[in-house]
Amino acid sequence: MTAPTTGVDRASGRPVVPVRGAQRPLGQAEVRVTGGFWAGLQATNACATLEHCESWMERLGWLANFDRVAAGTSGSDRPGWSFSDSEVYKLIEAAAWEFGRTGDAAADAMVRRLTARIAPAQDADGYLNTCYGHRGRPPRYSDLETGHELYNTGHLLQAAVARLRTTGPDELVDVARRAADHVCATFGTAGLCGHPEIEVGLAELGRALGVPRYVEQARLFLDRRGHGTLRDIPLGRAYFQDDVPVREATAFRGHAVRALYLSAAAVDVGVEFGDDALVGAVARQWDHTVERRTYLTGGMGSRHQDEGFGEDWELPADRAYCESCAGVASIMVSWRLYLAIGDVKYADLIERTFYNVVATSPRSDGRAFFYANPLHQRTPGGVSDDDAVSPRAESGTRAAWFDVSCCPTNVARTLASWQAYAASAGPRELTLLQYAPARVTTTLDDGGALAIDVDTAYPADGTVTIRVAEAPAHAVALRLRVPSWAGGAVLSEGGRTRAVTPGFAVVDRPLVPGEEIRLVLPTTPRFTWPDRRIDAVRGCVAVERGPLVLCAESVDLPAGTTMDDLEIDPSVPPAQLAGHRVTVRTTDGTDVVLVPYHQWAERGPTTMRIWLPAGRPIGPSDRDSVPPVS
Amino acid sequence: MTAPTTGVDRASGRPVVPVRGAQRPLGQAEVRVTGGFWAGLQATNACATLEHCESWMERLGWLANFDRVAAGTSGSDRPGWSFSDSEVYKLIEAAAWEFGRTGDAAADAMVRRLTARIAPAQDADGYLNTCYGHRGRPPRYSDLETGHELYNTGHLLQAAVARLRTTGPDELVDVARRAADHVCATFGTAGLCGHPEIEVGLAELGRALGVPRYVEQARLFLDRRGHGTLRDIPLGRAYFQDDVPVREATAFRGHAVRALYLSAAAVDVGVEFGDDALVGAVARQWDHTVERRTYLTGGMGSRHQDEGFGEDWELPADRAYCESCAGVASIMVSWRLYLAIGDVKYADLIERTFYNVVATSPRSDGRAFFYANPLHQRTPGGVSDDDAVSPRAESGTRAAWFDVSCCPTNVARTLASWQAYAASAGPRELTLLQYAPARVTTTLDDGGALAIDVDTAYPADGTVTIRVAEAPAHAVALRLRVPSWAGGAVLSEGGRTRAVTPGFAVVDRPLVPGEEIRLVLPTTPRFTWPDRRIDAVRGCVAVERGPLVLCAESVDLPAGTTMDDLEIDPSVPPAQLAGHRVTVRTTDGTDVVLVPYHQWAERGPTTMRIWLPAGRPIGPSDRDSVPPVS
Repeated sequence: MTAPTTGVDRASGRPVVPVRGAQRPLGQAEVRVTGGFWAGLQATNACATLEHCESWMERLGWLANFDRVAAGTSGSDRPGWSFSDSEVYKLIEAAAWEFGRTGDAAADAMVRRLTARIAPAQDADGYLNTCYGHRGRPPRYSDLETGHELYNTGHLLQAAVARLRTTGPDELVDVARRAADHVCATFGTAGLCGHPEIEVGLAELGRALGVPRYVEQARLFLDRRGHGTLRDIPLGRAYFQDDVPVREATAFRGHAVRALYLSAAAVDVGVEFGDDALVGAVARQWDHTVERRTYLTGGMGSRHQDEGFGEDWELPADRAYCESCAGVASIMVSWRLYLAIGDVKYADLIERTFYNVVATSPRSDGRAFFYANPLHQRTPGGVSDDDAVSPRAESGTRAAWFDVSCCPTNVARTLASWQAYAASAGPRELTLLQYAPARVTTTLDDGGALAIDVDTAYPADGTVTIRVAEAPAHAVALRLRVPSWAGGAVLSEGGRTRAVTPGFAVVDRPLVPGEEIRLVLPTTPRFTWPDRRIDAVRGCVAVERGPLVLCAESVDLPAGTTMDDLEIDPSVPPAQLAGHRVTVRTTDGTDVVLVPYHQWAERGPTTMRIWLPAGRPIGPSDRDSVPPVS
Repeated sequence: MTAPTTGVDRASGRPVVPVRGAQRPLGQAEVRVTGGFWAGLQATNACATLEHCESWMERLGWLANFDRVAAGTSGSDRPGWSFSDSEVYKLIEAAAWEFGRTGDAAADAMVRRLTARIAPAQDADGYLNTCYGHRGRPPRYSDLETGHELYNTGHLLQAAVARLRTTGPDELVDVARRAADHVCATFGTAGLCGHPEIEVGLAELGRALGVPRYVEQARLFLDRRGHGTLRDIPLGRAYFQDDVPVREATAFRGHAVRALYLSAAAVDVGVEFGDDALVGAVARQWDHTVERRTYLTGGMGSRHQDEGFGEDWELPADRAYCESCAGVASIMVSWRLYLAIGDVKYADLIERTFYNVVATSPRSDGRAFFYANPLHQRTPGGVSDDDAVSPRAESGTRAAWFDVSCCPTNVARTLASWQAYAASAGPRELTLLQYAPARVTTTLDDGGALAIDVDTAYPADGTVTIRVAEAPAHAVALRLRVPSWAGGAVLSEGGRTRAVTPGFAVVDRPLVPGEEIRLVLPTTPRFTWPDRRIDAVRGCVAVERGPLVLCAESVDLPAGTTMDDLEIDPSVPPAQLAGHRVTVRTTDGTDVVLVPYHQWAERGPTTMRIWLPAGRPIGPSDRDSVPPVS
């Protein structure tokens, strides 16, 4: 394994590099995760998931679709949906981040191998798509509502951004540039894709290559949407956010992934053009959505029917869709808002979503995935057939691959770039947002070098120890996120210990190499009561521990009892036993073990629930809510 | 208006005439509804809805589709879904029942007029379909899963049964007979339609015409289903009940209307062939479904995604689908089970479904309809555009017509035949099941004539007065249904008054012409608590009055409050005020008026809820459930 160095600056490897904002994102070279929870998931992603995805796409002919276009042999028998190209691009993106993170030659080879498959399929004018525009296929852009052509291209551009920011210009970047030029040439005055994604791709490729025209094209698409340009469909134009312009909307709505990709692009464009009103509009929609349309897990999307947001307070646990891809997309939006505005609440939601949606999707071996992530499984899921394609977004069973297989590659690219969301910097400050064993190094704006080593067993334990390795002589602000759940947190530094409240705990003074700063976040398991307006979980209580949402799984119930019998006595606080096991007391007086939600369904088909019916006495009034998540 | 008489026996006008069973259904000529709640709905149905449906189908070209097939000018531009033919047939059926009920010449003219449109489109071999099998259209039976060809035919046969049993053989019956012959000739050995319906049509036409081969073909279709013959689809084969044979299933599942039409046919076939095991299988599925998959309104279908049943206890109020057609289909199943088995519980559910699903669908003017019937409307519905086709099964707003417009004609045919479900007879007994002002006359098996007049303001008032008009000298059993909700009912007859319990109150003695029998069903409004396993309404209570489910509608809330503020004090019983207004006390000490659910959304866009959050003290433990409905 050789870390790439040529042509890569220290701040490389960042998915988003805004031109301005409250915070500067740190790059992969600046945040090196050295172990812990996320390093484990990243290793599985690298060793198993990437190859797994490539092999399924080869097996199903989604890769060969490119060969056929190149060879002029495409036809009506093309396998895959119109968006299968995007899976290839997301896999390339994942491999690019992985190579950037570790220098793993296999990941680099995957990027090159896949690039060599897609490049020959590109037309001379830059158009690249295996579903439209070639022999035996419908004409280009003949179905903008559902054809996903620009959506596919958007993912190609994001893959190229990953490559450019980790390795440098190559054939993939050239392909993407030609594709972006083609989009600008074709959609300068009209046209809109039914699935937003081209916008984030154009904005970031424009930034990465220094081509303002791409960012401007993203702005055009953004302004064009919301005026009923796309035809009405049974689910309504809200499905693809063509009902109301993004500036005027009050909440994320319609298809969740579409809504969130679009919102991410709106922040990109707003920041790029100094359009604070646009950024503010998305921030308000985020507030509304996180308060009223977001699950305790951070999951978004209450409806199977349209994979979409429901109405305010419509948050059924059993039919929660909470698509893995919507978790990824939510992190994209929150990250952009955090960089623009700097509010800690965005990083709080990112943590919640990472631990309880993104980490929940892959099976522990990285070769099967949840598509939907409900908070309640009423009947045991099936037994996964790892040799079969799941025709549906089944709940309760992780599947090796899906007919619509957007989630595996989306999770893969996000896991491979986890460290990008862990820290940020200001003029003379460094902020730790997510906790993992890591070395974080950065160069402050005045040229001063700062390096720290983070040691922690988080999230199993809430103690985070920071050892200063290198620091300038002058004062710097080291800011440590204190999550919203961490009441009673304590910071020890400079020979004293003090209580710190949720938000940022700040050490603002000259740091001394060798000194230790210790943040202790209480991870005593706690009850969380729902907002009284959520009908679906009225009279229930959830248990959380640190950033982890816990759940009851049927395999852990006392013999002879079922989930239907479970009723919690909320006058007895949840207990943490040895080995990080958490138990709750039932009204029958027995104790039931809870497990982290992200671990559920790893021990055979089970039923499961996060929100547990609470018997009386029920402790706090159910009029008390715990904002912002519900 | 001239009542038809020629060729029609006194027991005519019955949708279902089983060869055997616990009860004999009474015909339209035996039950004459003379006023009251249902007479009003029937009048509106006759005066407005029938013409409304015909005019929309003319406007949209669904009727002209038949003309084009007849003229050989069908083509790829055919308007309507593959099942639009069935809407024409259901309308003919509605008009046939209406003519049978009242002798209304306009209804008769509609049957003749529509028959004259469809008959010329029939092929020489009996095939009749405007979507398949003709110029510019896909071949016959080329898409059994979704093509609805046999489904359409099934509705044609049901229309012919209605005509045959109200007026006698005519051109429509001839068309249906040829269609049935064609089906038997084509599907003797293989083939299955993705939407059950042909089965009930064949079974009843076979009975009505005395052609056992039709009933046998229904049996073949029934036995063929459940073995994975139809191809798998993303929603799974349970969607069209091809996952498990009907004899082996444990609950109604998949698409609700499909499941219920199939179950109705299973009872028909089971009764016809003396197959008690088959009837018993459906009865067990009914029990399971009514306990665990049925709403307080009688509505069935918890999911929008597949218009389907959910899992046990999955009964969200806000996303309840409760399709109007599923209510119709549920009545079809319950009626057949009642006739076969005689248990009062089937008539109880029929009443609940009639008052709270079927009566809810049509707007008071009979020119707009609910498709979905949720128990909770979170945001105000739109304002109905009576000149537009609704592209979706919207909640909160009745629509004049739908892109998929199954519900208006289904409601129409069911309202026109309401009286068919009101009474039944045994060897020397007469049973009143549904209460309305009516004259009921029948000839007992020994030739004795029995005639009674029913006088009641039901459901506004629970007093039912029966005056004997004619009776044989020997003892007869007059059985009056005491609904499951009617604790404290009292029967006065023969000079004495006694308490009667839910089930049947029986007067078994010689009846004296001129005597009065009075049943008083208490209609004091009452709280209903949900089964504790229904997560969606935990901590809530509903209010019912007689057979009516009540709801809170936002227009009735105190000024300055919203539905989100509503919390009921369940220690104060609901109160009935003058004019049948019902109020509940909130925890804030104010009173809120409730209205019958079937009347909601008649006063402009509103929010609404049936299940009302209950503040403490909450009265009965929420472990207490009120079976069978939830």
